[in-house]
Amino acid sequence: MSKYITSSNGQQDETDYFPEGFVQLQNPNIELMDQDILYHLGLGSESHDLIEMFGDVKFVCMGGTPKRVEQFANYIMEEIGHKLPTGTTLQDISRYSYRYSMYKVGPVLSISHGMGIPSVGILLNEVVKLMHHARVQDPIFFRIGTSGGIGVEGGTVILSEEAVNDELEPCYELSVLGKKVRRPAKLDKKLLRELKSLHHKEDPYETVTGKTMCTLDFYEGQGRLDGAFCHFTEAEKMDYLQSLKKEGIVNIEMESLAFAALTHAAGIRSAIVCVSLLDRLKGDQIHTPKEVLDEWQMRPQQLVARYIKRYLQMKGRISFDKTCGAFTCGGLCSNGIESGMCKEICQKAG
Amino acid sequence: MSKYITSSNGQQDETDYFPEGFVQLQNPNIELMDQDILYHLGLGSESHDLIEMFGDVKFVCMGGTPKRVEQFANYIMEEIGHKLPTGTTLQDISRYSYRYSMYKVGPVLSISHGMGIPSVGILLNEVVKLMHHARVQDPIFFRIGTSGGIGVEGGTVILSEEAVNDELEPCYELSVLGKKVRRPAKLDKKLLRELKSLHHKEDPYETVTGKTMCTLDFYEGQGRLDGAFCHFTEAEKMDYLQSLKKEGIVNIEMESLAFAALTHAAGIRSAIVCVSLLDRLKGDQIHTPKEVLDEWQMRPQQLVARYIKRYLQMKGRISFDKTCGAFTCGGLCSNGIESGMCKEICQKAG
Repeated sequence: MSKYITSSNGQQDETDYFPEGFVQLQNPNIELMDQDILYHLGLGSESHDLIEMFGDVKFVCMGGTPKRVEQFANYIMEEIGHKLPTGTTLQDISRYSYRYSMYKVGPVLSISHGMGIPSVGILLNEVVKLMHHARVQDPIFFRIGTSGGIGVEGGTVILSEEAVNDELEPCYELSVLGKKVRRPAKLDKKLLRELKSLHHKEDPYETVTGKTMCTLDFYEGQGRLDGAFCHFTEAEKMDYLQSLKKEGIVNIEMESLAFAALTHAAGIRSAIVCVSLLDRLKGDQIHTPKEVLDEWQMRPQQLVARYIKRYLQMKGRISFDKTCGAFTCGGLCSNGIESGMCKEICQKAG
Repeated sequence: MSKYITSSNGQQDETDYFPEGFVQLQNPNIELMDQDILYHLGLGSESHDLIEMFGDVKFVCMGGTPKRVEQFANYIMEEIGHKLPTGTTLQDISRYSYRYSMYKVGPVLSISHGMGIPSVGILLNEVVKLMHHARVQDPIFFRIGTSGGIGVEGGTVILSEEAVNDELEPCYELSVLGKKVRRPAKLDKKLLRELKSLHHKEDPYETVTGKTMCTLDFYEGQGRLDGAFCHFTEAEKMDYLQSLKKEGIVNIEMESLAFAALTHAAGIRSAIVCVSLLDRLKGDQIHTPKEVLDEWQMRPQQLVARYIKRYLQMKGRISFDKTCGAFTCGGLCSNGIESGMCKEICQKAG
């Protein structure tokens, strides 16, 4: 099996792909360094035992804000029935970097990436190196985000088929030593289909797929009329958004291009699951009450949690008890009862 | 007096400049809106009395991390002798946005901008609108940052003469409705000279001026050999960095271009004061101990604090008592003693 990865001259090279292998770095220098300081994570390959700390990671879930990723860490802990030792609580692993927040819940890392391509780009470089140093095998990366929908209602869950730049090309361009390098912003098609299949008929919202446009600017760059600067009319804005819709763009956000391109270049399977906070064909400002927005932002988390649960279940790392609806992980069900005892006891407890 | 500001067609327009006026928005739509929600600040023009809350602001100081701007808020409070009412403490005004942190100390706002052009760009759009809504007059914006030096030692303070993109043009390019718009990334020359003059002979570090290069990527984009991806040699990297030095680039960071261009387009005087964390001609990774880095990061804060103190002193808003070395603000010196009484009492206290 092979797939295209990046090269420095902007061409696509065909290279081996390691679906069940360790994360390979596209940089021969790292192995020659005495230590590798992951500056923005507050970690280092010599100062920390990265294999011991992170060797069991399978899923890396990223979201914009420290708050959201802390929330996801607690949510996935509940969902997979992961138990912390008595008298302990989750702690932000990167708290001394003051840049990103990182929580670990068994096989799941939950990390904030801030806003925009540069911020998620720094994080991805360091997390890919972290996966390599920790000898993690075939991790799966998710971006769990918010976005502006194009012709879809607020609250809709959107799975990205590919990320495109503001010229609608599925390509992340960066300048390396003064020369432009272009990297394909591809996402894993199989992962996308699997996620799509986890939408439930009874979910009170739609889950759609389409292209995601990634911009460097939130206001003018997304055709908003409400920034500090605006030199176009509402009609010009609407023409532009309608032209995006015709091209198959279903949402706009600010991180997908680097997320897709850098995970693809690293040979890491990845998916982007966003909720739409509003339909940009109907407005620019977000007037929806905070409680509703909070509920909407749980929806991509729920979909990703379903995937993670199903994966762990298939691998025998958690088992589902139909009676009590609780998952068991590490010998305990999510009610804290020993595996095997679960069904009987939970039946009695109702 | 006039200066060039932006236009939607990518050309420079000459327009009036209001050095002592209110902040004018380059967007006629804002005045027609019932309310303006500053989503990423957690503020709104109807939900908050922005004139009452922010009308007395004169200085907006931005830095990368929530930690650094909280530290600056406490530092400037001490420096200008600003007293909080008994039993109160500073609180992050934007804490419910989960995006940026904002502290207010009398006439000074201290706000985190995150990493990269998109993140500082969102913030600047909303802070410029905040200045407008609050009817702030002629505010001065500072970016207080960290950077990689080119041919300057770690710990050197660098004042940006202008910000340039990765093609070495002093120009911030963004895509608006699918068309490229270019904005001059100009900084205020007088403010630069004033800041430069505030370097003290006895400061145990140099303060230099030069061009600042702004990149979208921290690793390959800045010619680093230690990212997850690297397809160039050390010799190619060194050739590139030397070519930057020849062009007058003294440091590289990730926000200056949008900071300079958007403040300039808004008619707001601004300056960028960074410390160099390392000389990139000597390496890529930051090995300096945390305590030393913490001391270095105080240096740009000290320079900006000197400017703010001198400004407030000249405007009669604080006065300097040579005997005790404390500034008085709002009738109290920084030892908490009433103005006028200060000299005598502090002399007695030694």
